[in-house]
Amino acid sequence: MGRKPVIAIVGAGREIEPAVSSALELGRLVADNGWVLITGARNAGVMKAANDGAKEAKDSLTIGILPYSDADVSSSVDVAIVTDAGQARNNIIVLSADVVIACGVDGAGTASEVALAIKNGKPVILLSVDDQANDFFSGIGRGRVKIAGSPKEAIEIARVLLQGDST
Amino acid sequence: MGRKPVIAIVGAGREIEPAVSSALELGRLVADNGWVLITGARNAGVMKAANDGAKEAKDSLTIGILPYSDADVSSSVDVAIVTDAGQARNNIIVLSADVVIACGVDGAGTASEVALAIKNGKPVILLSVDDQANDFFSGIGRGRVKIAGSPKEAIEIARVLLQGDST
Amino acid sequence: MGRKPVIAIVGAGREIEPAVSSALELGRLVADNGWVLITGARNAGVMKAANDGAKEAKDSLTIGILPYSDADVSSSVDVAIVTDAGQARNNIIVLSADVVIACGVDGAGTASEVALAIKNGKPVILLSVDDQANDFFSGIGRGRVKIAGSPKEAIEIARVLLQGDST
Amino acid sequence: MGRKPVIAIVGAGREIEPAVSSALELGRLVADNGWVLITGARNAGVMKAANDGAKEAKDSLTIGILPYSDADVSSSVDVAIVTDAGQARNNIIVLSADVVIACGVDGAGTASEVALAIKNGKPVILLSVDDQANDFFSGIGRGRVKIAGSPKEAIEIARVLLQGDST
Repeated sequence: MGRKPVIAIVGAGREIEPAVSSALELGRLVADNGWVLITGARNAGVMKAANDGAKEAKDSLTIGILPYSDADVSSSVDVAIVTDAGQARNNIIVLSADVVIACGVDGAGTASEVALAIKNGKPVILLSVDDQANDFFSGIGRGRVKIAGSPKEAIEIARVLLQGDST
Repeated sequence: MGRKPVIAIVGAGREIEPAVSSALELGRLVADNGWVLITGARNAGVMKAANDGAKEAKDSLTIGILPYSDADVSSSVDVAIVTDAGQARNNIIVLSADVVIACGVDGAGTASEVALAIKNGKPVILLSVDDQANDFFSGIGRGRVKIAGSPKEAIEIARVLLQGDST
Repeated sequence: MGRKPVIAIVGAGREIEPAVSSALELGRLVADNGWVLITGARNAGVMKAANDGAKEAKDSLTIGILPYSDADVSSSVDVAIVTDAGQARNNIIVLSADVVIACGVDGAGTASEVALAIKNGKPVILLSVDDQANDFFSGIGRGRVKIAGSPKEAIEIARVLLQGDST
Repeated sequence: MGRKPVIAIVGAGREIEPAVSSALELGRLVADNGWVLITGARNAGVMKAANDGAKEAKDSLTIGILPYSDADVSSSVDVAIVTDAGQARNNIIVLSADVVIACGVDGAGTASEVALAIKNGKPVILLSVDDQANDFFSGIGRGRVKIAGSPKEAIEIARVLLQGDST
C-alpha cells in the first residue's frame, strides 16, 4: 500500500485568471485521483481555489502549510500545519510533495517555490505560466520542469511522474 | 463544523516503558475521538507506537512532521511533512497542535518540545513523566502544564482543554 | 588560525538577578578572550546584558540571532541575523556555538535552548541555575552538561571544552 | 552610530565566469566600504570568491549562513552561522541583508534567493545576469530590482539604496 501521493499546487494569493480557474479544476482532479493536496493554506487566490476544488471531490484530503499562526486559513483546508517560518515555509511545501504544480508564476512567492522545488530535486509542472517564466525556469530546471497546456494535461504529466517515482 | 482538533503526541524514539505502551493507547484514543494525530513521524519508540495505535481506529488521520527527507517514516503515518529543518521541526509539531501530550520526557528532544510548546502558549499534558521533570516543567509552565496519571485521563484533560479553546 | 571560537549566552528576556549581573560579566569575559558572542539579540534581560558586557571589551564581536524582523535589537549587537523562524531561531543559536552557556533557566525559551543544545550534541554550561533545573538537565544531558558556580568558572570550563574541541 | 550595513552576495556554487571574477571584486568593494558581507558560506564558486575578495580588505567582516553543520565552509568566512534549515537558509541570508546582490543567476538556488528577497521587500541588484533572468525578475520585482553593468556600478547602486534606507 504505502502512503498516498502528495501534490503541491502553488500560485499567487491574488485573483488572477486563468490561474484561479485552473487551480479550482486542478484541485478537484488531484482529489478525484485519491491524491493528497498540499498548499500554502491561505484563504486567497490560487491557494483558496485549489482547496475549494479538492473539497468538491469525495474523500479528499487537503493539508495547508501556514507561514504564521495568525495567517488566514481557507476553510477548505482539512489540517493546517503552522510553521512560524515565514517564507521558509515555501521550502516545506515543495519538500513534502511528490510533484509540484505551479498555477501561474505571477509573483515572487511562487517563483521562490518553483526555484526551491528545482533546487531540492522535485519535479515541477508549469500551468498558465507566460513564455518568459516558462523559458526562465526551463533554463535552470535541469530537465525537471514540464509545461502543461491545461489542468487535465498537468494531471496526466503528474501521473506519469508518480509512476516513475515508484519504480 | 470547522477543522478537526489536532493533538500532538511527543516522546522518545526509544523503546522505553511505560511510555511506549501509553503512546499506543493514547494514539488509539485520539483517533477514536475523531481528532487528528500529529507526531515526529519517525519509525521508533513513542512516535511509532502513537501512530500504530491511531491506525487501529477507523477513519484515523496521522500526520508526521519529519526533520529530514531521509528520515525513516513509520508506515502508520498517513501524510509525511518534510521540513528539512532538523530539530527546529519540533517547533512546527507543537505550533500545529491544539494540545501537546508528552508521553515520557526521557530525552532532550522531548524536553525541547515541551519547552517550545509552553513558550508558544500551547497547553501541555505530561504522562508517564517522572517527578523531577513534572516539577521542572510545572515550574516554568505558567499554568499551561497538566499532569495525567493514565492515557484515559490525558484524553479527558485534552477534551476539556479543546472545549475551552472553542468558546 | 581558523575561525574564532563562538560562545552562545542564553537566558531570560527579563530582569532576573543574579542572571543579568552574571550575563554582563560573562559577556565581558567572552570578549576579553577574543571569542565571538552569539545571543538571541533582543534588547532585554540576559541577552542585553551579555552584549553590553562584551562591548566593554576592546575588539569584541557580537552576533544576534533574531526571531522576527521587527524584534527589538540591543544596540550592543554588531550584526543582526534575521531568521523569521520564531522560536526555531533557538536551534540556530545553539548550532552556531561551540559552547552554550545558560545564565539562569528561568523560562521556557531558555529551557528549549538548553534542550536543543543537548539534542544537537553541543556542550552546555549552567550558571545561576536552581537545583531543580540543574538536576533535570544533568539527567538528560548525556554528560554534556556542566555546572558553574561563577562567571569566571564558566569561562574556565568553556576554555577546557574549546581545547578538547580542537584536538 | 548604529550597526554597519549588511550586504548579501548570492550566486552559484560553481566556477562560472564572469560571475566568480565579479564576486571577488564585489566582496573587496563591500569590505572597503566598511560594510559587513553575508553569503551562503560554502567554499565554492561565487560564495568563496566574494569572501576571498572581502578578506583582501583591512578590517573586513564576513558572515556565512550554512545550510547544514557539515557543509564545507570557506576559510574566508569569519563567523559561520549554522542553520540546519537546508535551502530555507536562503531566506535567512536575504532577511539579514540591507541589500542583496546576485552575481549571476545560474541556478535554482540563486533564483530562490532573488525571489525570496523580492517577496520579503528587500532591494536586489542583478550583476552578470543574462537578459532572460533580468527580464523575468524585473517583471516580478515590483520596482525593487536594479540591474548593474559592473561590480563598481553595483556598489554605487547599493550605496544609494543604503542612504535611502537610513533617511
